[in-house]
Amino acid sequence: MDTALDLQEPLTDDELRRVDAYWRAANYLTVGQIYLLDNPLLRQPLAPEHIKPRLLGHWGTSPGLNLLYAHLNRVIVARDLNAMFITGPGHGGPAIVANTWLEGTWTERYPGVGRDESGMARLFRQFSFPGGIPSHVAAEVPGSIHEGGELGYALSHAYGAAFDHPDLVVACVIGDGEAETGPLAGSWLSNVFLNPARDGAVLPILHLNGFKIANPTVLARIPEQDLLELMRGYGYQPYVVAGDDPARVHQALAATLDRALDEIADIQRRARSGDAVERPRWPMIILRTPKGWTGPREVDGAPVEGTFRSHQVPLAEVRSNPAHLAELERWLRGYRPEELFDATGSPVEELLSLPPRGDRRMSANPVTNGGSVLRDLTLPDFRDYAIDVPRPGEPMAGATGVLGGWIRDVIAANPETFRLFGPDEIASNRLGAAFDVTGRTWVAATVPGDEHLSPDGRVMEVLSEHLCQGWLEGYLLTGRHGVFTSYEAFIHIVDSMVNQHAKWLKVTRGIGWRQPLASLNYLLSSHVWRQDHNGFSHQDPGFIDHVVNKKAEVVRVYLPPDANSLLSTMDHCLRSRHYINVVVAGKQPAPNWLTMSEAIQHTRRGLGIWDWASTDAGSEPDVVLACCGDVPTLETLAAADLLRQHLPELKVRLVNVVDLMRLQPPSEHPHGLPDKEFDTIFTADRPIIFAYHGYPWLIHRLTYRRTNHGNLHVRGYKEEGTTTTPFDMVMLNDLDRFHLVIDVIDRVPGLAARAAHLRQHMVDTRQACRDYTRQYGEDDPRVAEWRWVRETEPGLRSGA
Amino acid sequence: MDTALDLQEPLTDDELRRVDAYWRAANYLTVGQIYLLDNPLLRQPLAPEHIKPRLLGHWGTSPGLNLLYAHLNRVIVARDLNAMFITGPGHGGPAIVANTWLEGTWTERYPGVGRDESGMARLFRQFSFPGGIPSHVAAEVPGSIHEGGELGYALSHAYGAAFDHPDLVVACVIGDGEAETGPLAGSWLSNVFLNPARDGAVLPILHLNGFKIANPTVLARIPEQDLLELMRGYGYQPYVVAGDDPARVHQALAATLDRALDEIADIQRRARSGDAVERPRWPMIILRTPKGWTGPREVDGAPVEGTFRSHQVPLAEVRSNPAHLAELERWLRGYRPEELFDATGSPVEELLSLPPRGDRRMSANPVTNGGSVLRDLTLPDFRDYAIDVPRPGEPMAGATGVLGGWIRDVIAANPETFRLFGPDEIASNRLGAAFDVTGRTWVAATVPGDEHLSPDGRVMEVLSEHLCQGWLEGYLLTGRHGVFTSYEAFIHIVDSMVNQHAKWLKVTRGIGWRQPLASLNYLLSSHVWRQDHNGFSHQDPGFIDHVVNKKAEVVRVYLPPDANSLLSTMDHCLRSRHYINVVVAGKQPAPNWLTMSEAIQHTRRGLGIWDWASTDAGSEPDVVLACCGDVPTLETLAAADLLRQHLPELKVRLVNVVDLMRLQPPSEHPHGLPDKEFDTIFTADRPIIFAYHGYPWLIHRLTYRRTNHGNLHVRGYKEEGTTTTPFDMVMLNDLDRFHLVIDVIDRVPGLAARAAHLRQHMVDTRQACRDYTRQYGEDDPRVAEWRWVRETEPGLRSGA
Repeated sequence: MDTALDLQEPLTDDELRRVDAYWRAANYLTVGQIYLLDNPLLRQPLAPEHIKPRLLGHWGTSPGLNLLYAHLNRVIVARDLNAMFITGPGHGGPAIVANTWLEGTWTERYPGVGRDESGMARLFRQFSFPGGIPSHVAAEVPGSIHEGGELGYALSHAYGAAFDHPDLVVACVIGDGEAETGPLAGSWLSNVFLNPARDGAVLPILHLNGFKIANPTVLARIPEQDLLELMRGYGYQPYVVAGDDPARVHQALAATLDRALDEIADIQRRARSGDAVERPRWPMIILRTPKGWTGPREVDGAPVEGTFRSHQVPLAEVRSNPAHLAELERWLRGYRPEELFDATGSPVEELLSLPPRGDRRMSANPVTNGGSVLRDLTLPDFRDYAIDVPRPGEPMAGATGVLGGWIRDVIAANPETFRLFGPDEIASNRLGAAFDVTGRTWVAATVPGDEHLSPDGRVMEVLSEHLCQGWLEGYLLTGRHGVFTSYEAFIHIVDSMVNQHAKWLKVTRGIGWRQPLASLNYLLSSHVWRQDHNGFSHQDPGFIDHVVNKKAEVVRVYLPPDANSLLSTMDHCLRSRHYINVVVAGKQPAPNWLTMSEAIQHTRRGLGIWDWASTDAGSEPDVVLACCGDVPTLETLAAADLLRQHLPELKVRLVNVVDLMRLQPPSEHPHGLPDKEFDTIFTADRPIIFAYHGYPWLIHRLTYRRTNHGNLHVRGYKEEGTTTTPFDMVMLNDLDRFHLVIDVIDRVPGLAARAAHLRQHMVDTRQACRDYTRQYGEDDPRVAEWRWVRETEPGLRSGA
Repeated sequence: MDTALDLQEPLTDDELRRVDAYWRAANYLTVGQIYLLDNPLLRQPLAPEHIKPRLLGHWGTSPGLNLLYAHLNRVIVARDLNAMFITGPGHGGPAIVANTWLEGTWTERYPGVGRDESGMARLFRQFSFPGGIPSHVAAEVPGSIHEGGELGYALSHAYGAAFDHPDLVVACVIGDGEAETGPLAGSWLSNVFLNPARDGAVLPILHLNGFKIANPTVLARIPEQDLLELMRGYGYQPYVVAGDDPARVHQALAATLDRALDEIADIQRRARSGDAVERPRWPMIILRTPKGWTGPREVDGAPVEGTFRSHQVPLAEVRSNPAHLAELERWLRGYRPEELFDATGSPVEELLSLPPRGDRRMSANPVTNGGSVLRDLTLPDFRDYAIDVPRPGEPMAGATGVLGGWIRDVIAANPETFRLFGPDEIASNRLGAAFDVTGRTWVAATVPGDEHLSPDGRVMEVLSEHLCQGWLEGYLLTGRHGVFTSYEAFIHIVDSMVNQHAKWLKVTRGIGWRQPLASLNYLLSSHVWRQDHNGFSHQDPGFIDHVVNKKAEVVRVYLPPDANSLLSTMDHCLRSRHYINVVVAGKQPAPNWLTMSEAIQHTRRGLGIWDWASTDAGSEPDVVLACCGDVPTLETLAAADLLRQHLPELKVRLVNVVDLMRLQPPSEHPHGLPDKEFDTIFTADRPIIFAYHGYPWLIHRLTYRRTNHGNLHVRGYKEEGTTTTPFDMVMLNDLDRFHLVIDVIDRVPGLAARAAHLRQHMVDTRQACRDYTRQYGEDDPRVAEWRWVRETEPGLRSGA
């Protein structure tokens, strides 16, 4: 320990008694939730029928959480703090539920569970019980923004919550199990990105209770001097509170919290004095107390308190083993419930007076119900950023680069409620226009020549998808907006985090008092088809498949084919609520197809026939060429042109899909196109050659119940790739224009014989392209030789 | 810097000159690969036609990699070290390729690329060129076990390679970009799990070149004192080498490498002296040199060397901009190629003499071609671990618990080539029998009461799926075997790592000199249907979907229905090569169905009809009940029993699927069942009610091209869940026996009217079960009331 805080005794005897009583009450209520079906106040001797038939819950971490919660309540009142609590050991659900019930918030949210004896019985019964509440600190728990079922994200969530909330103190408990995860280990240095002048504070509390499910924890077993150096290395000032004597730990923790909060106040005062902002040494606390503290010391001869055996349910056979039952009763009565709850079962006045009031209660802090404080973004009119598309195919412009101008102005117009996140890929993904109006958040050292670094930057760049995701989730969950842009392949790094956020969104749709959040928006660029530099390791379009497994009411996937449609799509996403929006768009110069008014109409519909590229003239076509994604759209249009040149009598319909979910029936997804409309567009019986951005079978899945799915033939990415040219990539995966023409010839009845020559020509052309590429290292010039349909039939263009 | 190593000058003038020449040669070859299509030795003035049409590659990190490689070569020779090199900044592909060519390994592996002028031209041309080699340190590069396209795993791979290779020194370069990732940050403390007596050494080299693609790096900008404390906190002894004067850096790096290797030798000597093994303070190196060192200082007026602008191709317009061309020529000639390569283009003798010989070359170390040193496991006969199954449904036994006995003996029989990995879930997943013969690897402190911790433990437990995966990959890639067991939901945490490993396996199938590796085996337990404790956050069966997107020749998925079939499956997996095997199995007590001989037959077939549970007596059934996964199998058998009781005339065929890939046609997967066999089993036209463990549409996908897929009706997980009872979980997702009966009634033509009463009875029973569960907190006893089919018709059992 760096200082002699453990010798201080800031609590008066009265304060000590009160905070200890509060802690005992929370511990009692925690154990009650895990075990009791009835007899909540032990007014009768404990009997087997009072015990739940299935004992589920996690005791081990709970007394530590209760201790911290009680002490934080003390300092919140003393300092009138605006604080919230993040429970990294989220399986300590009963502890946090207990505290919210003591604070009154639980009853306010769930009036059926009163702060009295029958309410306490309901509180106990509902926990980890069918039809009740989950065992973790789930979305049902007031004050929680963090489930904690999957470990690793507590600290990044905490920082995300603190950004742009200058008065907020986020107390973040990190279990020593969670601390072993990569994402958590990578989160400590978030303090390089926290501006003490305009952001709030994060107070990390590393809870070393020493054990995981079955193992000691690493950080509890390295030398304490190493641990202190580690925390100092991360840029923190660590304070250790250790012990197993409650009275001493109460005093040490109180002194340490006072010290830490004094330092936070000092840091903020200095940073807000007008001087240049520098990265301060923020305080953090290491709390070393026994796992399962105050629980059974031994069970059946084996030590339990202070060991991994207290992780879940220390006494497992309470219904059948009278010794266990007696031990449970001793344990519960040891908290002296008769001193804690009055005759009605309500907490005694002394307990009621300890926590803060109203919104100052951590469980009632409005930012923890982010939707309740969410304000709409001020969005510049995206139409003003349109590029002029005089005719389909012109001009060449990268979609994300065009979007960048709008994003820049979104940032400027919403200086406190919107941030752009990315793993060092903002410029690479062509959103660099943002740097016209803001910098990258950076509070560490700078050197001459640095570009666009600023403590006030609105762009968050760190080479960690986990941090980007965790920060953004924390930011959204506390009522703000954001966009995460990443290379398409590497967004898989956060697959599991997306799972958890999707689950949160799904569950909170069913919790009346939780207001909708801003959507989690992904802009995926540097996609599978254009990894010219990076090759196979950077090629994976499977994130779409991953999110499509989530609940339909939560996920949306868009693949706008060009710049104007990307603008329209992103505007929609930033206005939407409580979704996960996945937008995939290219960054490389590419042809543009749609005027802004066409783009608006097309993206609103989500899919549609492009008349100007079709030759069916409104009649039933011989074949439907469908496409989804910018590169497949280009190849499909080129294929349509080849067909038009070589088989002018063939009636081709070209359909472009932006909103992937439109392909599903309405019974499967709210965006689903009605069957009748689907059949009108895709026909009931003609071959459909579908060129898709990602893994082909997803299209089969989405259209599985459609009338014509038996005639659907999908091309897409089939895991073939390397460092090569853009056209070689589509050839490797049989998505190229020449192969699409071959597919048409092979699929349209009667065409094979008639078009045998063309088919061979396509085969030869592919080979020639491949040979050229292998020899010259660039794409065969002939792939740029095709004409736009509109050149031959300008009148076909809608609106022309 | 802790010591005055920067004042030492261990290199003689001659040594200094030679190591510098080697470095210059590697740098020259690096730049040549990025830029030159021809004129490799600059025998003519450089002209635009000598330049590649598309400039792809990463220069920035390369000079640092070349520096380290050259210096490591020096110490390998001096100490006769057994060393390998892991290139965390894997996009520095041309640097490592250059070194392998200098060492001769490239030419040995690819005789078409000789160590002469024409070979050099081919070397240059092939790099990042269509038909050539990828730009990263890919599988094509001799000595590489680590592609490095996706950042974060260098250090965990390094530790994985070092385990059980006592003589190996793994030099692991970590870029300061990669160091920001969570997985890398979580890897440093791997030293808690490295036994200096029986494992090799890892020498981490943190290369601070200061910049990522577009940003400074965090670790380069925190105070150096913090960085040193951070490394000490992780348990290392850091040594800093910093500078931009080559001569001084050469001396400092040489002195530091000598010091570090001396310390490693000391540590190993002490640990191997017979005394108790303690966690030593391993050395690590911080190398702070400019990004793009020795490249262009400025381009078009902007600083390049030492900035993010040197990340990829510093001179971008060499073909079109004469000033860029001239600058490139100056840059290349600055390395004085005429001193480095002789008239034939071969490296001069002085260069050839610097690197080690034969297998001592890092690029030729046999362990880096793991398959070449892989030996078969000694596998105890799994049949000896069978449980006796006197009749289907008995006894109740958890599958993984039975497997645990066999795993225990696999560990004991292969004390140097097999490890079991898991994120603190080995005991939870019921594989605790392993601890009868071994401990958990642990080199940190222990306290009384600790169980099964040992520096020699063969079980690797850390609360990080990333570390488990990275260690195991490193272990497999260097020629050993292992199993990773995890909770099913959280294996998504390593989705992206699995992607990269699958890509490695796919690519290396096409590289003749790469020998097949042991398969990457997942045993997923604590699965979606039995998260009684943990609820919704722990429920996700989507990892199967994720891996099925990978190349069919690489992935295998098994869902054995009981203990004996799990034994047979795991034996198969541990004998297999170069696959990703995903095995999903339950840990909870559950009925067992198959005797060992039946299990062997069934798992070999991969799927099959269970005659003893069918009532079609070999004739064409009215309905097929298919099932895959232990819980769906139980519910399907119960449904079959209900149908038998209530609709005895209905001909039901029960099919169980173990090997999911059997469902695909042979054209899609090598395990695919021929269409004719498939139709024989699943019929051509009868309804199939398929109860599946995971997301239902995967079954649709796999059977998409089968004759009868239009009659397929799949039940599975549809993202409904919470903390509840096992039977309530299947009810929430409509996978329960009662609902399966309803599905049969609704699907079999003509049954709806005949069985209306039964249908209503099923609806009522479901409601009653739900009500009971909500009231009593446990499953309705009636779900245990069904009978096994064999009780009524014992003769039906095959082999009876």
